[in-house]
Amino acid sequence: MKRLEDKIREEGQALSEHVLKVDAFLNHQVDPVLMQDIGKAFAERFADLDIDRIVTLESSGIAPAMMTALEMNVPFVFARKRKSLTLQDDLVEADVYSFTKQETNRISLSRRFVKPGERILVIDDFLANGEAALGLTELVESAGATVAGIGIVIEKSFQPGREKLLARGYRVESLARISKLEAGHISFVEAVR
Amino acid sequence: MKRLEDKIREEGQALSEHVLKVDAFLNHQVDPVLMQDIGKAFAERFADLDIDRIVTLESSGIAPAMMTALEMNVPFVFARKRKSLTLQDDLVEADVYSFTKQETNRISLSRRFVKPGERILVIDDFLANGEAALGLTELVESAGATVAGIGIVIEKSFQPGREKLLARGYRVESLARISKLEAGHISFVEAVR
Repeated sequence: MKRLEDKIREEGQALSEHVLKVDAFLNHQVDPVLMQDIGKAFAERFADLDIDRIVTLESSGIAPAMMTALEMNVPFVFARKRKSLTLQDDLVEADVYSFTKQETNRISLSRRFVKPGERILVIDDFLANGEAALGLTELVESAGATVAGIGIVIEKSFQPGREKLLARGYRVESLARISKLEAGHISFVEAVR
Repeated sequence: MKRLEDKIREEGQALSEHVLKVDAFLNHQVDPVLMQDIGKAFAERFADLDIDRIVTLESSGIAPAMMTALEMNVPFVFARKRKSLTLQDDLVEADVYSFTKQETNRISLSRRFVKPGERILVIDDFLANGEAALGLTELVESAGATVAGIGIVIEKSFQPGREKLLARGYRVESLARISKLEAGHISFVEAVR
């Protein structure tokens, strides 16, 4: 997605070989028009899949999931990293290790909103080691639903997440694929489309 | 906002005199079309304020802030409850006690995205005791910006949050105002408009 790549080039910051800071438009401040375009791009790429519902993970997955859900006219659910007093019943759970935050979060989703037999689109902001995406697929499958596709805003293609997901047979669509980060420089996987 | 009140009546659950569960459409599963209407309603109510930016709090504020930002054509920023490796520089911070989660969170916002002199609209999903909204106003003002208005999706009008905000001179617009919760029954403040 050219507009997203341009935005990453202009406003993203490669802090090291592994860390890309995109808090100017994706995971702290959000550019709503870019996010609308991201929703349209996911809706287009997954238009053939007959999706019932979208599942994402709080917090940075919420904005892209919101816009994709609006474009596809389906509800979305955001998995929680911590339980609240009002979210306790009938949960499916999975453990997700975050390399960025250096901690394991137990993520959860209510079975009331992901039902057996449904076709689910998983959306997340980043794909690196695949921990969050795999945790989300585990939640969806524990609830008896099927992961029809996985949509990623920014993929760090030099890390193993994509390969892990493909090896398990998931369809993965990433809107921007980064081949290399060097302090001050960001390279992209050459777009096939 | 009638459509929101209807949705609360149909899908909200009063668990006790203080706890309203709205995870079917607001803070776990999200109804994207309702959220679009919520964004339009906020944009209309605050149209006169010449807003530069929207500030909300992760996670449940993100969807309504996203749709309001899109309607108003301004960026939004979500304050973080925990710091990540890529969000450490030049923060403003405030402490917020959550009665629902029974814990204090230190919330933070980067000064890079809320600038001195800007006019900020604060958006949040719930207003009860006012802790979260007051924490957000503290962040905005610490950054040297002005809180031009506060938009709340659901206000529990029998709790003191609204009065606290009005006493400090803030303009508060709540799309649904609940006057009373009883197990199994939800009453609304009579709408003036």
